[in-house]
Formats: sequence, C-alpha cells, structure tokens
Amino acid sequence: MSKPPVLEQPIQGGSLLAALDSLLADDLAAVERILWNELESDQPCVKDILQHATRFRGKRLRPILVLLTARACGEVNDTHRLLAAVVEMIHIATLVHDDVLDEASTRRHVATVNARWNNETSVLFGDYLFTHAFHLASELPTSHACRIIGRATNKVCEGELTQIHERGNLDLNEETYFKIINGKTAELTAVSAYLGAHYADQPAEVVNAVEAYGRKLGLAFQIADDLLDIVGVEKKTGKTLGSDLKKQKLTLPIIRLLATATSADATIIRELLAHPEDETAAQLREYLHKSDALEYTSQTAHKLVEEACEHLNVLPESQARHWLCEIARFSVERSF
Amino acid sequence: MSKPPVLEQPIQGGSLLAALDSLLADDLAAVERILWNELESDQPCVKDILQHATRFRGKRLRPILVLLTARACGEVNDTHRLLAAVVEMIHIATLVHDDVLDEASTRRHVATVNARWNNETSVLFGDYLFTHAFHLASELPTSHACRIIGRATNKVCEGELTQIHERGNLDLNEETYFKIINGKTAELTAVSAYLGAHYADQPAEVVNAVEAYGRKLGLAFQIADDLLDIVGVEKKTGKTLGSDLKKQKLTLPIIRLLATATSADATIIRELLAHPEDETAAQLREYLHKSDALEYTSQTAHKLVEEACEHLNVLPESQARHWLCEIARFSVERSF
Repeated sequence: MSKPPVLEQPIQGGSLLAALDSLLADDLAAVERILWNELESDQPCVKDILQHATRFRGKRLRPILVLLTARACGEVNDTHRLLAAVVEMIHIATLVHDDVLDEASTRRHVATVNARWNNETSVLFGDYLFTHAFHLASELPTSHACRIIGRATNKVCEGELTQIHERGNLDLNEETYFKIINGKTAELTAVSAYLGAHYADQPAEVVNAVEAYGRKLGLAFQIADDLLDIVGVEKKTGKTLGSDLKKQKLTLPIIRLLATATSADATIIRELLAHPEDETAAQLREYLHKSDALEYTSQTAHKLVEEACEHLNVLPESQARHWLCEIARFSVERSF
Repeated sequence: MSKPPVLEQPIQGGSLLAALDSLLADDLAAVERILWNELESDQPCVKDILQHATRFRGKRLRPILVLLTARACGEVNDTHRLLAAVVEMIHIATLVHDDVLDEASTRRHVATVNARWNNETSVLFGDYLFTHAFHLASELPTSHACRIIGRATNKVCEGELTQIHERGNLDLNEETYFKIINGKTAELTAVSAYLGAHYADQPAEVVNAVEAYGRKLGLAFQIADDLLDIVGVEKKTGKTLGSDLKKQKLTLPIIRLLATATSADATIIRELLAHPEDETAAQLREYLHKSDALEYTSQTAHKLVEEACEHLNVLPESQARHWLCEIARFSVERSF
C-alpha cells in the first residue's frame, strides 16, 4: 500500500475497515492484548461477563484514532498503545451503561449485559470498565493522561445527563443538541486524537488542530448516528432502532423539522412526538421526507467532516493523514 | 483536648463524631471545599443534582481515615486533603449506584437520586462522580495515587459483582462472604488508611500495618452493617431495611445460622429464605435469636476491631492513634 487509493464513491465500510485493520494490525492486536490483560479477573462471575463482552468487539474507532493520529504525527509508541486501550475501555463502559439506560437487548448482534444478566450487573460491569481504564492509564509515570481522560469522561457524563434531562423537551434547540453530542460523543473522539498527537511530541498548535479534527469527526459521527436512528433499518445496524423517538429524545432531523415547519404543522408534529408509537413514527417520517430536515442533517454532518479534514492540513501529507480523512468521511456514510 | 477521654461504655456515635468533627474541623472543611469545587458544573441539570446530593452528607468515615492516619503518622498535608476528597467521591459514587441496585428510595433520610429523578440519572451521576474522582486524583504530579485508587475501585466492583452473582445462593459460605465484603467495603477503607500513611512518608512496614488496620475496620464495619440490616429499625437508620433478606443476599448471621442448624431446621430456614416476605422475615428472626448467629456475628466483628487496633501499635502513641482505634470500636457499636 505505497499509494493511498482514490475513493470517489461513498466508502464501503467493510473495505475501509479491512484496510485499516491491515494497516494497523500489529498495533491493534497489541491494544487488544493490553485491554483484556488489564480486565482479567480471578472472580469466576467476572470472567464470565468478560468472556461475553469480548463479543461486543466493534469498530474500534477510538483506538484507531489514537494510533492513526500518532502515525500521522510521527510514530506509534507504547504510550499510544496503552492509551488506545484506555479510550476503548471508557467507550465500552459508556456503551454498557447506555444499554441499561436504553433498555437495549442487543448490541452488535449480541445480547447486552443487562439482557444476559441484569441491570445491576451492567451498572457494576460498567463501573469495572471505567475504573480499570483509569487504573491502566495510571501505569504511565505522570498523571497527565489520567487528567485529560478524566476531564473528557466528566464531559461525556455531563452530555449524557443533559440528554436525559432534555428528554421530552419538544422545544429542544440546535445549540443544546450540539452541547449534548459534543459531550456524549465528540469529547472521546477529540481526546483520542489529542492523545495520538500529544504523545508523538507535537507542539501545542498541532495537538490542538488534531484534537479539533477528532471533535468534528465525533460530532459528524453522532449526527449520522442520529439520522440512522430515524431512517435506518434495525436488521442492518444490530441495534434496537428508533429508540430516540420512543424516548422523546429530539435529534437534529426533528429539531430542523420543527424549526422549518408551519406553525400548524409544528403543532401536529409535536402531538405525534408526544405519543411515540409505531404509527406516529410512520407519520413523522412522512413529514421528515416532505421537509429538508434529512438533507439538512446530512449536509451538516458532511460540512463537519470537511472542516475536520481541513484541520489535518497542519500535518504533512501522509498515508495516515489520508486515512484519517477517510475515516471522517466514512463515519457519515456508513450504513451499518 | 490534650488527653484522650477514657471511654468504657459503648461509644455514642454522636459524641465520637462530634469530637472528630471538632478535632479535624479545618481539614474536613478543606476536604468539602475540594470535593464540591471539583464537582462543579455549568450544566443546569447537573447543578440541580449536585445541590440535591449535598444533602447526602454522611459519616465521612473514609476522609476521616485519610486525615487521622496521616495525623497519627506525622501531619496532614495538601495531598491528604485532596485524596480524602477523592475517596469520599468514590464512596458516594458507589452509594449512588448501590441505590439503583437496591431500588432504595431514601438515603440518609433524603430521597435517593433514582427516586428524585430516575435510574438513568443515577447511573450517569455515579459515573460523573467516579470520573471526577480520578480527574481530581490526577492533579497530583505522579500517577501513584490514581493507580492505587484505581486498583481499589476495581476490587470494589469485583466484590459487588460477586455479591450480585451470589444472590439467591442459599449455600453461600463464610469464605465467599468475606471475599465479597473485603471487596465492596474493606478495599476503600484500607486504601484510605494506606493513603494517609503513604503520603506521610512512612516506611512500607508502617504503611502496610496501617492499611491492614483500615481493611479490618472495613470488614468489621460491613459485618455490623449486615447485622443491622437484620436486627435494626428502619426509622433509626434512614435506610430501607431488611433489603438483604428481600434480595436473598446471605450475610454472616444467616450463613452462621445455616451452618449450625440441624439438618431439619436448615431445610425450613432455606425454605423461608426462598420466600422473602415480611412474615418469613419474622420467622427467620426467631431462628436467629434461638441460635448463636447474632452473637457469633457480633463477636466476629469485635475480634476484627481488636486486630485492627493491634496493627496500629506500629505507630507511636498519640491522640490520633487513640481516635483511630475508637472509630474502629464505634463502627461496630453504632446503631444509626
């Protein structure tokens, strides 16, 4: 792979991920080893849960971001590999707790911990993952990484708490929506990119630009995810779908729909949102398709992706930089 | 208070705590400031929850252990104050998540977060507390404290996961019971004592002895708590009582009862345990009072307290050492 392929068409997730898996194979394997080694337990019941959780292995976006930004800034070292495992562990922790909050029964086509065991086990297993993440991060001699990751996870929690609090608020505006997704999703992708650049000894200016890339990528990713929740197909994503509407969580498509609807339509739409059933969801989709809301949402995500890629111009051209940009593009094109 | 008072009678919780509050007033006030300062948020909904959570202010056993072991080993410094806030934050986090697990509606006479808001908010607020604890600990230049606290919280989670897993196991033995309470309670009191001694620059031998004191105190404390769950009075403790029996969590009194009962009685007792209702609880209490289980449990706790105090003999005599011992004694005498 001496020259990056030119990809004019929307990227097929499978091929991008396969390419990255091959590009980063050794480092990703090292990250996996570090992660599961850290989580090991001599308690039989914890072993069982860990065994089950290995099946959740997902896109590994965050560790890939740490490794690839490191590579784009210089080279991958042991600190990067360790921190890639830390951010993935934090991510899995938030997923395990999200599944409790969403009462989800499957995650990546596998029964969630709360479905397989119970909510109590999920809460505690999430805590187990959080505290192991910090335990692992503190293997580094200074506390800088712990502090940075601590602050990011604080913001993740704030974002999620705000989201819960705003559930049922049918007047949610874009500003608050962005505040929520900036916390719950973009903080962790931003910190992943930050760690890659910072521990490749880059100057502050470069580190900040790479972090900004990670943040905009995260925002775009979440907007695409929210769009998928509305227009996606359950079978394809392996997740319980339409959960946002069921829980009266307003996301960008609906916020845009309400902002652009006539006053009379807005009243009807709010009425539909207030009674989230399968039939009302179908009616909502009709309103959405008649409006520019889906396109606006998609465009917003794409604009963020382009801005994310622009931030990377602070780095010299390289294969790694190219792939970082492709990841950002892929994050809004994926249909799985 | 130049000379420690001689206390022959079981200590009245109020007066012991009042004495300690006055002895450690300045340091405890500093700890509170550090704690709430760390937790501050500009998100209105997080502010509301924090405001509510200030009312949970409890015994502050863990910060008192950090401060008092520090004093018994030398003097209290800024690191101790910061770490005292960290361990209290971790403790509150576990309480908030415990209240979800136990579906408790009050905590220290105040509505729990899950009762006042909902389970989702409790889960996320607990996460917020956990991640802020590590964020605060990483203010220290080295990662040692983060690592030690990380390991302890890992063990807390393992203990709690094992407890959940063993719920309904009517053959639970003492060994597993001790493994559970060593994780869920004694790890955090042990680490509190460890931090006090370690950051007072004590040699390993002293630090280990002080940690052992903290561990045995924690075990004794939890055994007393489990006894209280069975024989206590709801009004006095401000907690929903008898929750262990309701959830088929076997604790030392029941384990001892089953181990010493005739085979015929054991069958009846297991039958009662399998149907946890108010009437069966009353029948169980009768069996308990006819057996030596309550006394055995109390004696086990008292023995641990005496062992805890013996560990302190590694330290020179001082007022602080005296109070550490009194705290251990108080932890098994308290009736609130």
